[in-house]
Amino acid sequence: MRHAAALAAVASLAAAGTPSPPPASAPYADAAARIIGAELLDGRAYEILAHLTDRIGPRLSGSAGAEAAVEWTAERLRSYGLEAEEERVMVPRWVRGLEEAEILAPAPQRVPVTALGGSEPTPAAGVTAEVVEAVGIEGLQSLGADAVRGRIVLFNAPMTVRGMEGYGPAVAQRTRGASEAARLGAVAALVRSVGTLRARLLHTGAVSYQDAAPRIPAAAVTAEDADLIHRLLASGETVRLRLRLGCRTLPDAPSANVVADLRGRESPEEIVLIAAHLDSWDLGTGAVDDGAGVAMVMEAMRLLGELGLRPRRTIRGVLYMNEENGLRGAKAYAESHAAELPRHVAALETDSGAARPTGLSATVGPGGLERLGDIVRLLRPLGAESVAAGGGGADIGPLQAGSVPLIGLRLDTTRYFDWHHSAADTLDKVDPRELALGAAAVAVVAYTLAEMPETLPRPDPPSPAPARRP
Amino acid sequence: MRHAAALAAVASLAAAGTPSPPPASAPYADAAARIIGAELLDGRAYEILAHLTDRIGPRLSGSAGAEAAVEWTAERLRSYGLEAEEERVMVPRWVRGLEEAEILAPAPQRVPVTALGGSEPTPAAGVTAEVVEAVGIEGLQSLGADAVRGRIVLFNAPMTVRGMEGYGPAVAQRTRGASEAARLGAVAALVRSVGTLRARLLHTGAVSYQDAAPRIPAAAVTAEDADLIHRLLASGETVRLRLRLGCRTLPDAPSANVVADLRGRESPEEIVLIAAHLDSWDLGTGAVDDGAGVAMVMEAMRLLGELGLRPRRTIRGVLYMNEENGLRGAKAYAESHAAELPRHVAALETDSGAARPTGLSATVGPGGLERLGDIVRLLRPLGAESVAAGGGGADIGPLQAGSVPLIGLRLDTTRYFDWHHSAADTLDKVDPRELALGAAAVAVVAYTLAEMPETLPRPDPPSPAPARRP
Repeated sequence: MRHAAALAAVASLAAAGTPSPPPASAPYADAAARIIGAELLDGRAYEILAHLTDRIGPRLSGSAGAEAAVEWTAERLRSYGLEAEEERVMVPRWVRGLEEAEILAPAPQRVPVTALGGSEPTPAAGVTAEVVEAVGIEGLQSLGADAVRGRIVLFNAPMTVRGMEGYGPAVAQRTRGASEAARLGAVAALVRSVGTLRARLLHTGAVSYQDAAPRIPAAAVTAEDADLIHRLLASGETVRLRLRLGCRTLPDAPSANVVADLRGRESPEEIVLIAAHLDSWDLGTGAVDDGAGVAMVMEAMRLLGELGLRPRRTIRGVLYMNEENGLRGAKAYAESHAAELPRHVAALETDSGAARPTGLSATVGPGGLERLGDIVRLLRPLGAESVAAGGGGADIGPLQAGSVPLIGLRLDTTRYFDWHHSAADTLDKVDPRELALGAAAVAVVAYTLAEMPETLPRPDPPSPAPARRP
Repeated sequence: MRHAAALAAVASLAAAGTPSPPPASAPYADAAARIIGAELLDGRAYEILAHLTDRIGPRLSGSAGAEAAVEWTAERLRSYGLEAEEERVMVPRWVRGLEEAEILAPAPQRVPVTALGGSEPTPAAGVTAEVVEAVGIEGLQSLGADAVRGRIVLFNAPMTVRGMEGYGPAVAQRTRGASEAARLGAVAALVRSVGTLRARLLHTGAVSYQDAAPRIPAAAVTAEDADLIHRLLASGETVRLRLRLGCRTLPDAPSANVVADLRGRESPEEIVLIAAHLDSWDLGTGAVDDGAGVAMVMEAMRLLGELGLRPRRTIRGVLYMNEENGLRGAKAYAESHAAELPRHVAALETDSGAARPTGLSATVGPGGLERLGDIVRLLRPLGAESVAAGGGGADIGPLQAGSVPLIGLRLDTTRYFDWHHSAADTLDKVDPRELALGAAAVAVVAYTLAEMPETLPRPDPPSPAPARRP
């Protein structure tokens, strides 16, 4: 009863408030309205996310939390009546240890630090050196080797634009800064936390060592302490700092992607893949990154099954392991399913938080964006209708080698980087209704792509790799 | 030149935008305009605050930072040509150690904790027990001893109203909760951080043990983790937690109040006291609590001297030590200056952050509020004009025994408790212009009280103690 009323309301809203959908997506408007209505009335996405964060917690690759997430999600997907497999993959295992830093001169003061993921440790006594400030990697290059040799480089370019747009320019110094500094003789790298909230928050994330450069320890400092060091340097004084990191890289550990199929009605060998990542950073509980995506994917699978919406093709949910510090799950899937990739008609990834969906981005062949523009009209009741060219997601990126059309679910990321990769990435940052909108969007797009007779034009395989957000 | 233009502008603003001040404060309007104009054009309050936070850092009583603050502020006040003394006082010396907590059941997860100031340590192996939740001290009483005995009590009343109004109701569980729980047999107390920002922030603050109750360890948890434990308990499960605290109370340490006089022109033995506190909590650098107040008091003294505004009576700046965890400085001043208190014509305290001033609160004799209402008209160019009954401040509270009129500078505290007592209390939370408005307000009120022939009606000595905010 409640369902029926809501479905009618949503359907009439969709019909009344917008121009009639053009032919290609029109046949799916009823299904879309059923999906959206059911999810908003009685969705389970938040319940899934609450389990991941409250009952499992942080899920860094190789940790007990990551393994618990593999087991629980696979079991839960099976409880929906789906075929769910754990596809084994070896993952990096990096663990945190002592984390300590102190400004020794000109004015002693402790500053909180956290190692970047994958960082080498310092010697037990720490690294003690003068600090030199670089505004991003460009700023480092303009300093030159004489200014950098034997020093600790503070990468201090702030994230000046909120949301996903601002992340790319700010994060390069975190991923590549340490190796660039090491090439010029630096002994350690500190990186201003890539984030947009002023709450003395540490934002971790992967450091990516380049083969040719010495592997120097790398840690995040808060925006506040980056500013403090800046002020001390700006006054013309020498800043000396001691950094101690006890992190370690252990041998690779066994883990898994979780892969669940809602088998297609007519062409089960054709696959629409929907993806998120199971692993998270270790400081918070990975609610917005990417527990929310996992919840959307699982909930989309559950809901389509419950509504009896079994489309023509197979919808495959893939919960990838190790997006954050290695992409091992993504690479393993692309490799072990290489033979199937020509029959992957699309892959959609959701890894941009938990806030309201705004549309899609896509890497597709000619004419594909227009076709997605048609499909995205089905999301108008959710407030999402944009389609942008390019992108897709880090985990589905390797599928492009098989010419698989890549789609990213775009979400409102205005506040995402307030919490991203920090201890503050916890359940309370997620609005249950906004999360439900995301789950509904994934379900509608996946269903439509799996049901419509035509498929998206495939992109060229050797095109540039989609933007990666480690 | 720049000065003159600004002063004229401020004076004309004051004259044009408001009704003419009534007789009592009218003679001081020119001085007020000079003070405000000079502070906004060329004030030094922010520079003082930057030194306290960037160069000295955290200033918990008995720490090296607190001692550095005593030395530097006394010296700086002397550099203004003032008579500044360090009045010795012994202070508590409490130091942090290991801080660790882990939910053991139903779902293992580490939670960040920080000891409340003055807490006893746990045994080295920690305290491990079931958690029972109490919504404030009233909630604890309604649980009863059977529910509490042998357990860890989580005090989980949230701070629901922003600003100073919301603090009082929320903080009682932090100061008194541990002893109330201990009386009922609890083995430790966890307290939801008293704050208004969701950033996984720990807010410390003093625990006040009552003599009759066992002294159990007490620690703050973040709002996020208090909510997590609430959800686990609300699902009907038993939550077990291990808490480890290595904090220690060392022998009392020597420290000092810093007392500086701008000697009065005609009646130097009559004193208008202006106060803030030098000590801070140890997690942040004490910018808003109460480095800002220290900067306002010092700057008011400097500015009046520089402008040649030497009033009839003495203006005495007192930078108290140990407001946060003992009020030793406040008690020592009241005691050693007891003979002078009849000649303290007023005491004004600023300890509510660094944002724009909104007015005054006061504990005064009959007719005193009206007189202050007259004086506060001089602050209209700053946007401050309210006068509220009651209060004054924790450090000047003991002066009421000597019937000293007590005045609190009221500031906009909307965001104050986002950072208060947390690691996020750092310089960047202070807007230089708003801080200047506060410094100007202190200088205008102090000057007027010290210059006007009449004095404020004195309050009765035995009236109830003013609200204390440790």
